[in-house]
Amino acid sequence: MPDAIMIVPFIGVLSLIIAMSVYLYVKRRPPSGTPSMQEVEGMIHEGAMAFLKKEYLGLVLFMICAVPLLWFFFKEWYTPGAFVSGFLSSIISVHIGVKTATRGNSRAAEAAQKHGKQAEALKISYLSGSVVGLSVGGLGLLCLGAWFWMLGGDPNISRYVSGFTLGASCVAIFFRLGGGIFTKAVALGSELAVKIEAGIPQDDHRNPGVIANKVGGNAGEIAGMVADLFESYAAAIIAAAVIGAVITVSPEFMEKFPVLKGKEAGTVKGLFTGLPVLIAIAGQISSFAGIVSMKAFKGPRSVAFLRFNIYLADLIFVALAALVVSRMGLPSGIFWAVFSGVVCGILISLLYEYYTSGPPATYTYEKARSGPAAVIISGIILGMRSACLPLIVLGAAVFTGYCTAGLYGLGMAAIGMLSTIGVEMTIDAHGTITDNIGSISEMPDRGFSLRGINEGLDRIGATAKAIGRGFATGSSALTAIAVFTAYALMTGLKTVNVINPPVLAGVFIGAMIPMFAAAKILGSVGKAAFKIVEEIRRQFRAIPGLLEGRDGARPDPETCVSVATGAAIKEMICPGLAALICPVAVGLLFGSEVLGGMILGTVITGLLLSLFMANAGGAWDNAKRYIETGRFGGRGSDNHRAAKAGVMVGDPFKDASGPGMNVIVKTVPVVSLVITPFLKPGGLFLGL
Amino acid sequence: MPDAIMIVPFIGVLSLIIAMSVYLYVKRRPPSGTPSMQEVEGMIHEGAMAFLKKEYLGLVLFMICAVPLLWFFFKEWYTPGAFVSGFLSSIISVHIGVKTATRGNSRAAEAAQKHGKQAEALKISYLSGSVVGLSVGGLGLLCLGAWFWMLGGDPNISRYVSGFTLGASCVAIFFRLGGGIFTKAVALGSELAVKIEAGIPQDDHRNPGVIANKVGGNAGEIAGMVADLFESYAAAIIAAAVIGAVITVSPEFMEKFPVLKGKEAGTVKGLFTGLPVLIAIAGQISSFAGIVSMKAFKGPRSVAFLRFNIYLADLIFVALAALVVSRMGLPSGIFWAVFSGVVCGILISLLYEYYTSGPPATYTYEKARSGPAAVIISGIILGMRSACLPLIVLGAAVFTGYCTAGLYGLGMAAIGMLSTIGVEMTIDAHGTITDNIGSISEMPDRGFSLRGINEGLDRIGATAKAIGRGFATGSSALTAIAVFTAYALMTGLKTVNVINPPVLAGVFIGAMIPMFAAAKILGSVGKAAFKIVEEIRRQFRAIPGLLEGRDGARPDPETCVSVATGAAIKEMICPGLAALICPVAVGLLFGSEVLGGMILGTVITGLLLSLFMANAGGAWDNAKRYIETGRFGGRGSDNHRAAKAGVMVGDPFKDASGPGMNVIVKTVPVVSLVITPFLKPGGLFLGL
Repeated sequence: MPDAIMIVPFIGVLSLIIAMSVYLYVKRRPPSGTPSMQEVEGMIHEGAMAFLKKEYLGLVLFMICAVPLLWFFFKEWYTPGAFVSGFLSSIISVHIGVKTATRGNSRAAEAAQKHGKQAEALKISYLSGSVVGLSVGGLGLLCLGAWFWMLGGDPNISRYVSGFTLGASCVAIFFRLGGGIFTKAVALGSELAVKIEAGIPQDDHRNPGVIANKVGGNAGEIAGMVADLFESYAAAIIAAAVIGAVITVSPEFMEKFPVLKGKEAGTVKGLFTGLPVLIAIAGQISSFAGIVSMKAFKGPRSVAFLRFNIYLADLIFVALAALVVSRMGLPSGIFWAVFSGVVCGILISLLYEYYTSGPPATYTYEKARSGPAAVIISGIILGMRSACLPLIVLGAAVFTGYCTAGLYGLGMAAIGMLSTIGVEMTIDAHGTITDNIGSISEMPDRGFSLRGINEGLDRIGATAKAIGRGFATGSSALTAIAVFTAYALMTGLKTVNVINPPVLAGVFIGAMIPMFAAAKILGSVGKAAFKIVEEIRRQFRAIPGLLEGRDGARPDPETCVSVATGAAIKEMICPGLAALICPVAVGLLFGSEVLGGMILGTVITGLLLSLFMANAGGAWDNAKRYIETGRFGGRGSDNHRAAKAGVMVGDPFKDASGPGMNVIVKTVPVVSLVITPFLKPGGLFLGL
Repeated sequence: MPDAIMIVPFIGVLSLIIAMSVYLYVKRRPPSGTPSMQEVEGMIHEGAMAFLKKEYLGLVLFMICAVPLLWFFFKEWYTPGAFVSGFLSSIISVHIGVKTATRGNSRAAEAAQKHGKQAEALKISYLSGSVVGLSVGGLGLLCLGAWFWMLGGDPNISRYVSGFTLGASCVAIFFRLGGGIFTKAVALGSELAVKIEAGIPQDDHRNPGVIANKVGGNAGEIAGMVADLFESYAAAIIAAAVIGAVITVSPEFMEKFPVLKGKEAGTVKGLFTGLPVLIAIAGQISSFAGIVSMKAFKGPRSVAFLRFNIYLADLIFVALAALVVSRMGLPSGIFWAVFSGVVCGILISLLYEYYTSGPPATYTYEKARSGPAAVIISGIILGMRSACLPLIVLGAAVFTGYCTAGLYGLGMAAIGMLSTIGVEMTIDAHGTITDNIGSISEMPDRGFSLRGINEGLDRIGATAKAIGRGFATGSSALTAIAVFTAYALMTGLKTVNVINPPVLAGVFIGAMIPMFAAAKILGSVGKAAFKIVEEIRRQFRAIPGLLEGRDGARPDPETCVSVATGAAIKEMICPGLAALICPVAVGLLFGSEVLGGMILGTVITGLLLSLFMANAGGAWDNAKRYIETGRFGGRGSDNHRAAKAGVMVGDPFKDASGPGMNVIVKTVPVVSLVITPFLKPGGLFLGL
């Protein structure tokens, strides 16, 4: 383990301090001006806190069950401790994200209203985004750095830190799966309530569903993305470190690389184990540079601005990574593996943008003329087609990583993609916050409209979110592959041989999990929505004067959000447990190789479903937005109705089940990695 | 090779003779009575022939390219010869199928009209179906039996017969992919034409699109299913024979089975190679028994009747298979592998029925109340969920087959499922023919209606088709796995190790192929439909008096069908070539192990897509049929419109892209099997 590892936690703390200062700066900005705006802001904030409170309740219960279980199996406190630290740091990241987003949102809306200009609103939402970005990266570095620093010399370090990822994975299940169901259920529920109950005001903050919907679009989306990316980040670093620790550094291996001459095998392994976090520091510094570069960027804050941020950060990162690798005296192939990860990340994001808002998506808009079925089928075609090129890009990244640095290269490619999480998370949070400026300031009883500005904000918000979505999917895939490799090395498996029929059967079982989970999540949205409809109707009956808009009659969005969150968590249990329990069951019963097959099946199918659903959903969403700009007949036309049917299918695709796949794809290998000490080659059945 | 092999071709010929006699019996039945009916029948027949003619043209061109290519690579005439024989026997099966179906159709319609009873119509359509079923099995046995008889002792027999499957696969691409696109394109095109061109009569035989549509629903569907099942049948038998020929029969192996004591290793191998065709004979005899059992079945000809046929045939088959295995002195494990295939076939068909017309589908009907988007999303959920249990069943069959008879068991499980192809194909063709009785006799200008009877016919037809669809998907999966195993053994691969990153990249590429093909096929339907619209409009402009319905003005359905078939073939080239060329390219460039990974990716994804699309499509179709019986508001209601949106998405799913996946899933491993002599472990790139 290189000595430089001790700087890792400090960089983490430094990032958090910077994030905190930016947060205080944003918080000092004038909040919502008019009393009505303040009321809305207050209700959204309350709702967001109610969402978090309910989620925390579920998480605490989960932790109370999980920690003794881990202790019981591992008979030591490091693994459960790492689990708790991963669990808590993911929760803290989410908390910071949600808090900043709701604060930043109202302040950006106020800026947009007061100055009537995009630039000011975008600046505030970007700064808020950067708080999220810097703290996600910072927390990851702080905790992982601390673990590596404390236990760097321990031979069981791989096992301990894999507990950390498991913690992050469990939180991701709650926020990405549960949060996704919550977000789409409140959207659907508040829409249905208006349809079912005559007289309930639409788009009015008297309707508790409207507030809940805004909580979903804001807090729910941020929370899901933060937990998802935090999981990827932690898992990628740990997978690479585990691969580094377990990989065989034979004399022949050493001889192949002149730079390693004279080093001891143990030293080289130590360097391999420590390198991932050091590269992650390079990423965090580059992210910071990318974020600061917003000052240097001339020209209007447009989509080009977002790209400029990311590419600059990537460029600096590549340079720093080259420096780190060469200063540590490691073969240059490792750098190239990192580089392939960076390129893979850029390409997958671009492909996502291309499919959801480029020429292929235009085709979907046009289909609106032929009715809802045509819109839907064209989106399905687009979704299927859009899964092809990303698969080739990922295959090429895996191949390049391997050719340049062996199995270790797979881990390093994942690190390469995820190190700049700071700037990527910033852009995504920025997108969500920007997207919500419009929805907050547009409530009809607010007495003013930002329509002119909003369209611009909308477009930038949508693009920023698209960049984030593409990144989340691609990074999940690379991370899952890296964890899979780490798993195989940890178990000492020489092969996961799919000609062996039990392994093949494992692949079948694995392929089933994402299908099952996706179906469950999609179905859950509808079920949870009905609970919300009931609650909305109950409030209108129970709170006197609410329906008539009498002064002092205030809805109770907190309860509404709480009901919705509870329903979402309940619905999340089934797919979440599938991802947690299937690997344990298959691994213990059929052994490590069959489990390897199962992981492969899950990763492949989950990845395909994620790409298919996210891209189809994105294209439908853009088709509707496009028509709403007034083309093809604009709002209220038949074309608009057709496009809306696409969105009704697409929204749960892109915000609930699609991103949910990212979590499934990572959780299955992560759980497998954690349980490696208990696996036997043939398991209970095949070992006989 | 056991001597009994010489009876195989004779059983084949016998089956063909029986099929021919039944055909002549059906043909002697009175054809359509009224002149108007005769006219319609004539046009459908002409259309079907035009469809076949155009397909044959494409096939001949394909063969002219393929045969010299095969000769060039193999430098001998057996492989191209086997290719041609597989190619031609598949074509002959299709021809018999289409011819019988169009003849049987009009005769069944006439019987329904004259006697006004279901029973008579069902009898004729069942007999017609049995012609198709017996001849598909018979042709397969005849040709394969002849090859095994002639070249049984040749050490290269495995390679030669794999050429046979390749021929069958290529024909399946033309008829299942091309035919599927044709079928759905004419359905969509004739619907669109009515919408676009004012005054074009709907559901009237003056409209050439209407006739083309009937050709699609009749000839197109039969041709696709025949070619698909013939491919499965040939591939399963050959895969099992190849596995038997290549498998290592070591002294330890012999010792494990007391029944093998005293036999020479060579003899055992010979028995293993010959057993698949002998088991297939048992299947053909049982199928015949199942078909004849229609006489014995008392009670009304309902869905129970169909099940009775299949289960009886399965029962007899299981008994005969046990007899064959024990008489040949082989271990009983082989019988259990066959048995697991039979059970797997039954379960998958039942699951298909359960999902498309059982309780889960009811949920889809109910969603019609919430509009088109809700119908579609509920169908998608159903499709995804419905893919789960079949995967477990297939995994269990693979596992059981392996546990009972090693790798050879995988081949025998596939044989077990496919041997009763005679009765399965009979039921499916019976379903298609029955389903079309209604559509033929319901043309409004015919002056009479069969509505009362039709509903019953419709239901039986739909169920019979559902049984066939489930069987086609399940058998494709098992066949693909068997061919995959045969491929691995032929190349001498010890492992297809997915931890090896190039192999993993191969899995990614493989997973892409079905996604790409499905997207292409779905898109093709729309594109080809527009060509048909143009042709229909051209005819109404060009043929004087056609629009007004003047006497003597006759549409030209032949040209319409020909245009549609041409367009479909053109659209089929891209996905078809992907399945043919990708394995060759990946195999030559990256070697046999990476190609193994690619096959796995294709099989898993293709299978999932096939189940997803076929089941979702089936459920939507049933929802519409259900509403059309008058419930939920019946025809013309909002609910009906919503259900129709589901069908617009679902029809290409279940009839074009879904079944198309079956062919892709088999063709990729079949091509790989054929090119094994040219594969090097590392290919051009990785071998360096």
